[in-house]
Amino acid sequence: MTQRYGAGIWHFATYVDRYATDGYGEPRTILDAIALAGQVPDLSVVDLNYPFFGGDFSNEQIGAELEKAGLDVIGITPEIYTRVFAKGSFTNPDPGVRRLAHELCTEAAGVVRHFGADYVKLWPGQDGWDYPFQVDHGALWKNSLDGVGQLAQENPDLKFVIEYKPREPRVHMSFDSVARTLLGIEKIGLPNVGILLDFGHALFGGESPADSAQLAIDYGRLFGMDVNDNLRGWDDDMIAGSVHPIELFEFFHVLRRNGWEGVWQLDQFPFREDSVQAATWAIDFLKRVERGLDRLDMDALAQAQARHDAVAAGRIAQEALFDLD
Amino acid sequence: MTQRYGAGIWHFATYVDRYATDGYGEPRTILDAIALAGQVPDLSVVDLNYPFFGGDFSNEQIGAELEKAGLDVIGITPEIYTRVFAKGSFTNPDPGVRRLAHELCTEAAGVVRHFGADYVKLWPGQDGWDYPFQVDHGALWKNSLDGVGQLAQENPDLKFVIEYKPREPRVHMSFDSVARTLLGIEKIGLPNVGILLDFGHALFGGESPADSAQLAIDYGRLFGMDVNDNLRGWDDDMIAGSVHPIELFEFFHVLRRNGWEGVWQLDQFPFREDSVQAATWAIDFLKRVERGLDRLDMDALAQAQARHDAVAAGRIAQEALFDLD
Amino acid sequence: MTQRYGAGIWHFATYVDRYATDGYGEPRTILDAIALAGQVPDLSVVDLNYPFFGGDFSNEQIGAELEKAGLDVIGITPEIYTRVFAKGSFTNPDPGVRRLAHELCTEAAGVVRHFGADYVKLWPGQDGWDYPFQVDHGALWKNSLDGVGQLAQENPDLKFVIEYKPREPRVHMSFDSVARTLLGIEKIGLPNVGILLDFGHALFGGESPADSAQLAIDYGRLFGMDVNDNLRGWDDDMIAGSVHPIELFEFFHVLRRNGWEGVWQLDQFPFREDSVQAATWAIDFLKRVERGLDRLDMDALAQAQARHDAVAAGRIAQEALFDLD
Amino acid sequence: MTQRYGAGIWHFATYVDRYATDGYGEPRTILDAIALAGQVPDLSVVDLNYPFFGGDFSNEQIGAELEKAGLDVIGITPEIYTRVFAKGSFTNPDPGVRRLAHELCTEAAGVVRHFGADYVKLWPGQDGWDYPFQVDHGALWKNSLDGVGQLAQENPDLKFVIEYKPREPRVHMSFDSVARTLLGIEKIGLPNVGILLDFGHALFGGESPADSAQLAIDYGRLFGMDVNDNLRGWDDDMIAGSVHPIELFEFFHVLRRNGWEGVWQLDQFPFREDSVQAATWAIDFLKRVERGLDRLDMDALAQAQARHDAVAAGRIAQEALFDLD
Repeated sequence: MTQRYGAGIWHFATYVDRYATDGYGEPRTILDAIALAGQVPDLSVVDLNYPFFGGDFSNEQIGAELEKAGLDVIGITPEIYTRVFAKGSFTNPDPGVRRLAHELCTEAAGVVRHFGADYVKLWPGQDGWDYPFQVDHGALWKNSLDGVGQLAQENPDLKFVIEYKPREPRVHMSFDSVARTLLGIEKIGLPNVGILLDFGHALFGGESPADSAQLAIDYGRLFGMDVNDNLRGWDDDMIAGSVHPIELFEFFHVLRRNGWEGVWQLDQFPFREDSVQAATWAIDFLKRVERGLDRLDMDALAQAQARHDAVAAGRIAQEALFDLD
Repeated sequence: MTQRYGAGIWHFATYVDRYATDGYGEPRTILDAIALAGQVPDLSVVDLNYPFFGGDFSNEQIGAELEKAGLDVIGITPEIYTRVFAKGSFTNPDPGVRRLAHELCTEAAGVVRHFGADYVKLWPGQDGWDYPFQVDHGALWKNSLDGVGQLAQENPDLKFVIEYKPREPRVHMSFDSVARTLLGIEKIGLPNVGILLDFGHALFGGESPADSAQLAIDYGRLFGMDVNDNLRGWDDDMIAGSVHPIELFEFFHVLRRNGWEGVWQLDQFPFREDSVQAATWAIDFLKRVERGLDRLDMDALAQAQARHDAVAAGRIAQEALFDLD
Repeated sequence: MTQRYGAGIWHFATYVDRYATDGYGEPRTILDAIALAGQVPDLSVVDLNYPFFGGDFSNEQIGAELEKAGLDVIGITPEIYTRVFAKGSFTNPDPGVRRLAHELCTEAAGVVRHFGADYVKLWPGQDGWDYPFQVDHGALWKNSLDGVGQLAQENPDLKFVIEYKPREPRVHMSFDSVARTLLGIEKIGLPNVGILLDFGHALFGGESPADSAQLAIDYGRLFGMDVNDNLRGWDDDMIAGSVHPIELFEFFHVLRRNGWEGVWQLDQFPFREDSVQAATWAIDFLKRVERGLDRLDMDALAQAQARHDAVAAGRIAQEALFDLD
Repeated sequence: MTQRYGAGIWHFATYVDRYATDGYGEPRTILDAIALAGQVPDLSVVDLNYPFFGGDFSNEQIGAELEKAGLDVIGITPEIYTRVFAKGSFTNPDPGVRRLAHELCTEAAGVVRHFGADYVKLWPGQDGWDYPFQVDHGALWKNSLDGVGQLAQENPDLKFVIEYKPREPRVHMSFDSVARTLLGIEKIGLPNVGILLDFGHALFGGESPADSAQLAIDYGRLFGMDVNDNLRGWDDDMIAGSVHPIELFEFFHVLRRNGWEGVWQLDQFPFREDSVQAATWAIDFLKRVERGLDRLDMDALAQAQARHDAVAAGRIAQEALFDLD
């Protein structure tokens, strides 16, 4: 089977932050972004923000542009982290805003059905807290689970994936780690809720992404994943493989060992880079990872791991990834 | 009810590290340490390492010294992190060493029974990994849970508490966070396994200790706790209240709000300080926390939290803890 | 002398980030922000971004609004971190952009003169790098110093203050720490270049802000400062005193001990809070700090510090700040 | 010229820490360690702790063992971080202890002369502080510089290198960063004081080690270096190249570009690994780095760096290091 590659469509947008409030480039519509994505060799699927940014576009318009670009839709990401949700989506103190979040996600579910996508991606980045004493932690967590649970129950035909992250934009995000998210998913107790594991979020959270993947797989909840890189202290969304190639390789090794066959996606924010070049470099590296996995001596590695032999295991991995022989 | 205070007996030992291999002071026996602990006003219980350090002491000798010092035993901590366990206790690649760990913990269970203590404390600090590719993460985690589960099953009359920590001495520890530990405990599925929540470990792991406490309580698994302080980037085991008084106050607020009535324990390592003074200062601060909880306007706080109002909630907390009025 | 309090005028703006691209509230002009600042009791000076945000305002219009609000100007912050400077201001690879940065700072110098302010504040937040191998580090640093040096040389009647920060928006910022900045300032070798020490930036960088202040003072380069709070892992720009009151108190103790008598400024970003309330709470806390400094037993503290006695010194500080007696 | 490789002799010792107080293996004498070092292909120099550990050995005995092992001495590291120095060496509050530190370093200088080594290495790991308010920061820093300065002045025939580190065993170490150390060295003002740059310490401190090297070189103060790896949050002293190969490659690129031709040393602590294997793997990787530097397209890289083009520069580096073509 040929490995499929994907990307969040925001990879091809431009960005603002609290300093460059005029943006790191001219604003782009989602149609512009799709066209750029189409220029990346080997990219075949995208995850789309909803509402579609940059204009009032119909599903059909988006569909036409995707077709032109040779792209399919893997997921829809409702934007439950904009101004109205500044104090939370599922956990907002205002029940009216919680309802808005529910409605937006429900609409997104419709878009998933329209495009035959795999899932609604939930990234409740504003759900959490900033200050000591700010929230009742029990109530907040309950709202987090109720919000996701209600969606999953009302849409049993669809999958909902939660993308956890330690923090940003909140100082602490409710779904902060792989284990916390699995704990929540088990509590919700529905089959159609899973995890979208972001390599960089795991790294940022002090996890070993390979371990996080194994854990999510062991619970049958690894529904999607994406990769990027960072300096371990923040969600830098840098280009995959540019800083931590070894741990990225271990992450993919765990996926293959478990027969996990989903799309390899990018979640990068090339603030100051050409987005097509940034995606292309990342995918070139991921193809190197693929070849590395083919070369990896799985038996020797398993034996080294059975002894917890870091040197032997590390050499085997380096040889496979870097063509050392 | 008068609040009871406790401490790990190692608080009154001296330490070595990889640089000061000759130790931060003359070696002390556990009897010396008990005598020092007895000098701390208001300290009433201790957690004892097992085997007893500094000599070949019988339970009776220890008991006599404890009586002299006016101290009871709250828990026993088997030392499953010394040389033989350097590559793990429950997860050691060598099944013979895993058996040793089991035997040591079983002996510790006997000591718990002897002293009528509350629990065996498990801190498998050498269980984890250092390098990418070093271990099979699924197998490692399974061994972690099997090791604890077997003990809990064989000793249904006793409680076993797991003290999680992100890392040290391993680069990554298996029981690394409150959520991961709860996930494991739920998988084990026995009523007598719980968490000993170390405030500093939660802080170090990027958790809000107050949130961690609430979560463990909501699962009925908060069996014990201890406090200290650090700079959030390492398990410094500094004196409680010396750096992060507000979050410490929030932590105890959550305990009280939930009617959690256990011992308030210290887990400090005063490498360069007088250990009696260090414990006394910490307990003086904890008494201030107690008075602060008495003064805390719970209704006003609940209202502020219902709005996620950080300024109002923070002011209420500051006023209660710092006597601002 | 009565302590004067100040704030960056952006404290009273609204913000965008890469997720809430529609902003954490309705956009405000600098005139709106000045009016809000005027509502904060005891606030007497502000630092103004330049160009003035939200409209095309003359110095005179700004001056009128300031007068109405009862505020003076302490400094002007040229916005050398917007789109055109995305790859750097003084270190931009394009010499034309470097020239633009110089021109903007030169204009800002004019505004300083107009308002009789104390300094031009330089925060070259886009000067640095993101990726390994991206830049020639020697050339980058040279450009950093040349850019500041030229300004200082051309405007000997004015002070220029550099506000260092470890990172954000770049993954690594050139002026990243107190020591690096002092090293650069010494190399520039001009009397009118100094440091604006941001308490939170020091904390974020793993510095002790008190130590950073002492060092800058010992070099005669502490020209300004501001405070806020964070969780040590990011520049959260939270409300001063809300998380780390002890280290904040130590910071001000060092200022007083050295007879440093400048303005106590706020650099907070209340994304989700009422900005007037956030500033008022912070200043209320700073007034507590003032009273704490009055109560601090300087002789006893000096004796404890002469012994490096953490417990004694810490108790003295706690008693002074928290009214423990 | 053939690249020479070295290692701290402690690489071949066994270790204790605060948990495994019985050590991660049988104690070894420095003679044992030298014999092990001799087994590592391509290792040609070592840095020796002083006093020599594990027995009362004369310089001659050490010299004989070194000769047998085919090793030369590059530096001597006086152990100014053992029990007596627990509260500091050059900055100890007790002037008698400061004198002891001076005497020990003076003896070490004699050993340097005996072996014709390159330098006395100063790593004042206990010089710093743990708690807010514990020390008078100005006085502490002055003592740091005075201690080093006196040694350099009294021994003008020798070089003294300072190895900075952010922290451990102290919560904060005085010589914490490249910039702080350079600032101090410039203040001391003597030609025979320089930096020993530890790659892992720079990484741990949030520096780019390549940038740190460039800065130290630009001040003419890069007198030595060593490498290892870590997870950026602690001084893990892991095997070089095992986690961060790209930044390691960039570090060596900067050395070569500047014509820096010293020894490439290892400072690793293989707690649970075979030390000969750990060193051998590291050196094998360093040889790959050497070949990578030979292959690196310096012109193309310089052009990419002139544009701050992260993608182009990163691809060039990856291709050189990983043989991508």
